[in-house]
Amino acid sequence: MYEKALAFWQANHDSSLAGLKSFLRIPSISTLPGNEMEMRRGARFVADELQAAGLSVSIVEGKPGEHPLVYGEWLGAPGKPTLLVYGHYDVQPTDPLNLWVSPPFEPEVRDGKIYARGASDDKGQVYILLKVLAGYFKTAGKLPVNIKVVIEGEEESSGEHVQRFVRKNKKKLAADAVLVLDTGMYAPGMPTITTGLRGLICAEITCNGGSGDLHSGNFGGVAPNAAIELAKIVAFITTDSGNVRIPGFYDDLIKPTRLELKAWRKLPFNEEDFRRDSVGSPALAGDKRFSVHHRIYARPTFEVNGIESGFTGDGFKTVIPAVAKAKVSMRLAPGMKPDKIATAFERFIHSLTPPSVTTAVKILSKDPALVVATDNRFVKAAAQAQSEIFQTEVVYVRRGGSIPIAATFQHVLSAPVILTGFTLPDCNMHAPNESLLLSNFYSGIEAIGRYLALLAE
Amino acid sequence: MYEKALAFWQANHDSSLAGLKSFLRIPSISTLPGNEMEMRRGARFVADELQAAGLSVSIVEGKPGEHPLVYGEWLGAPGKPTLLVYGHYDVQPTDPLNLWVSPPFEPEVRDGKIYARGASDDKGQVYILLKVLAGYFKTAGKLPVNIKVVIEGEEESSGEHVQRFVRKNKKKLAADAVLVLDTGMYAPGMPTITTGLRGLICAEITCNGGSGDLHSGNFGGVAPNAAIELAKIVAFITTDSGNVRIPGFYDDLIKPTRLELKAWRKLPFNEEDFRRDSVGSPALAGDKRFSVHHRIYARPTFEVNGIESGFTGDGFKTVIPAVAKAKVSMRLAPGMKPDKIATAFERFIHSLTPPSVTTAVKILSKDPALVVATDNRFVKAAAQAQSEIFQTEVVYVRRGGSIPIAATFQHVLSAPVILTGFTLPDCNMHAPNESLLLSNFYSGIEAIGRYLALLAE
Repeated sequence: MYEKALAFWQANHDSSLAGLKSFLRIPSISTLPGNEMEMRRGARFVADELQAAGLSVSIVEGKPGEHPLVYGEWLGAPGKPTLLVYGHYDVQPTDPLNLWVSPPFEPEVRDGKIYARGASDDKGQVYILLKVLAGYFKTAGKLPVNIKVVIEGEEESSGEHVQRFVRKNKKKLAADAVLVLDTGMYAPGMPTITTGLRGLICAEITCNGGSGDLHSGNFGGVAPNAAIELAKIVAFITTDSGNVRIPGFYDDLIKPTRLELKAWRKLPFNEEDFRRDSVGSPALAGDKRFSVHHRIYARPTFEVNGIESGFTGDGFKTVIPAVAKAKVSMRLAPGMKPDKIATAFERFIHSLTPPSVTTAVKILSKDPALVVATDNRFVKAAAQAQSEIFQTEVVYVRRGGSIPIAATFQHVLSAPVILTGFTLPDCNMHAPNESLLLSNFYSGIEAIGRYLALLAE
Repeated sequence: MYEKALAFWQANHDSSLAGLKSFLRIPSISTLPGNEMEMRRGARFVADELQAAGLSVSIVEGKPGEHPLVYGEWLGAPGKPTLLVYGHYDVQPTDPLNLWVSPPFEPEVRDGKIYARGASDDKGQVYILLKVLAGYFKTAGKLPVNIKVVIEGEEESSGEHVQRFVRKNKKKLAADAVLVLDTGMYAPGMPTITTGLRGLICAEITCNGGSGDLHSGNFGGVAPNAAIELAKIVAFITTDSGNVRIPGFYDDLIKPTRLELKAWRKLPFNEEDFRRDSVGSPALAGDKRFSVHHRIYARPTFEVNGIESGFTGDGFKTVIPAVAKAKVSMRLAPGMKPDKIATAFERFIHSLTPPSVTTAVKILSKDPALVVATDNRFVKAAAQAQSEIFQTEVVYVRRGGSIPIAATFQHVLSAPVILTGFTLPDCNMHAPNESLLLSNFYSGIEAIGRYLALLAE
């Protein structure tokens, strides 16, 4: 069954690529207000493909303002395991647009990579799944195992829809394992199982000073400067080495195991190359007591993702800004309690606010970190499938990013979660010129296809 | 001669207002790139009015990219003093546009005030001069004194044109006194002579971290955050009470005299009303060891006029910003040396920059503070004219703002500078809903008219 499907996938690279391009052309940016039509197109595309393959499909609407998710299932393999597969059809915003070599929603192949917003995160990986399912149905009329598919549209916008959907449909979604197709490979040619993710809190801070912007000549020395006061607040949250001063921030943090630390030390990694090629700054930041992998995989952070205040146009305007705004986020390590951290954060901001201004904190989302087990057959089969296709051993790493729904699956469905995928460190997720290596796209189809076959054995 | 002109001014309020509106309709924002046409219209308007009144006029071009200035003169009063009058036809930018009740370049009269960008700063005051001159020529065919007029187009953009013009035309511009029509009244009904102005340094700071914005999950903990690093830098420049940490910043500062401090204490002023009505913040900022007047008139400041970094659009994007920019400025007290301060500032920024990022500082302008004498007949005549028209004693204050050319006039022409004008503290200069009290506009024409008559006596 697998052999025939494999031949089909290998014979249909061109049509797979064409289909992926169609998917990538849909500008399904979930955080963009007024983008409902394009989001719906994204959901429709996924639903149509799943249905055409052979699954029963429904587009599940959320509350007003939420984006639809796509649910599909095929339960025609009695006695075989049931695998739930998760991915998302929404993508990150595209600015700064001027840094894209080709427009973000006009996919272009250059040097063996396909460039477009969502190529790696996560449309490329969702499309791998779609082709796997289509290939089996086309060649065998069925799948090796029972499949449930959840493809949501709010992964990049911290939406609540899929969270509610999973919590409310515990029975419907019951599965032996959950495959989260939204991570990537540690390095080219190095298939990877991800064993942990950081949690994430997103928030906005608004600082208000005077009732309006004021002339810095007439009021300089007596009127509070909202830009300076907000700068002082966000500047104080971290130490020079990036550690976070929020009281209790590190209290519940669970450190990585000795085994994990040892495995990370063995990963091929050159800090100077990483600094130059991946980061590009004159020096790395962060607490040097911990290795780069340790800092990214298992240490919490505070970031300012955006800040804006006063006159930022061309020219100059000597105003004292009345309002300053910052979008901020915290990555959380395993053990850290999102509710507790969010409350402590809000309290800390207010404690840092001088009497001349007011601050308002809005918590936009809060999700815990995740650590997954590696000693079950579902993870082992995933590792075997990938090592067969990529012809090398699988490595086990954590990721610094966050996939909130992964923790929810683990918790609500009490099923092992398998985090894997085929993106690469230089694929520019969330940045201009996002790409997916085409050879990973094709091998990814084979690896996931092989995985289903192995699960059925 | 004055009586006839006075009758003319009083009989022509409507046409004066109509003319002022035409002037205010020209969007002569000098800091706006690509606005050359409108700037030229502004200069042309002033030149036409001066010429129509009876002066010889020339539009003086600057270097490429500079805005023209208007020079006019009438030297037909031999034996009488020569007064040089300065003003500017350019205006501040208008954003945030949504806060304007009526559009900034569609002047509208509401409750006895005319609302438009430039109504007070400085078109309204320039137009007062134009009407004074026109009224004398209309009724007497001549002026009481010799007049030289310099109306420039770069006051709000820290342009170099007028500075060069004055330095190069010392002989042509020779005058017994210089009237700078670009300040205002301490309070409604309280005619005011300004005895000092703060200096101003404008600069931009750019902070560069990684080679591009990075995913905060994949790089959080190791990539420098340009927004946080710039926040830390600008946050450290001032203490909690707004004092400036730049080494040597206060070294050359000349304190106000005991007489001045005493005069300021006598000014009608309620700090709580000022906080509530003029500033609007929950508390005033600044060093409480100095009075509000002392802080505004004679203490230096550091302000962030604008800051921008990362993702500031709608929605959320968990990036680590690679670039952060701030527009900053410093008001200087008398004695402080702009060159020395600018160098110390630049050095200080670099000393605060951590190894993970780079900073670039661009000094856009640097001008010293000014203190003017009050014991000459030109100031005394100005005070007498205004106390006659407004029927109350004139007060002497300083201003916290900056008029760089005033110091240049005093220095280059070795002539006493008289700083006066008819704007009010609540006229929203540099802010949305800028206004000019119409009764001040009409009385201003009479007061400047009377001033010329007194100078001729």
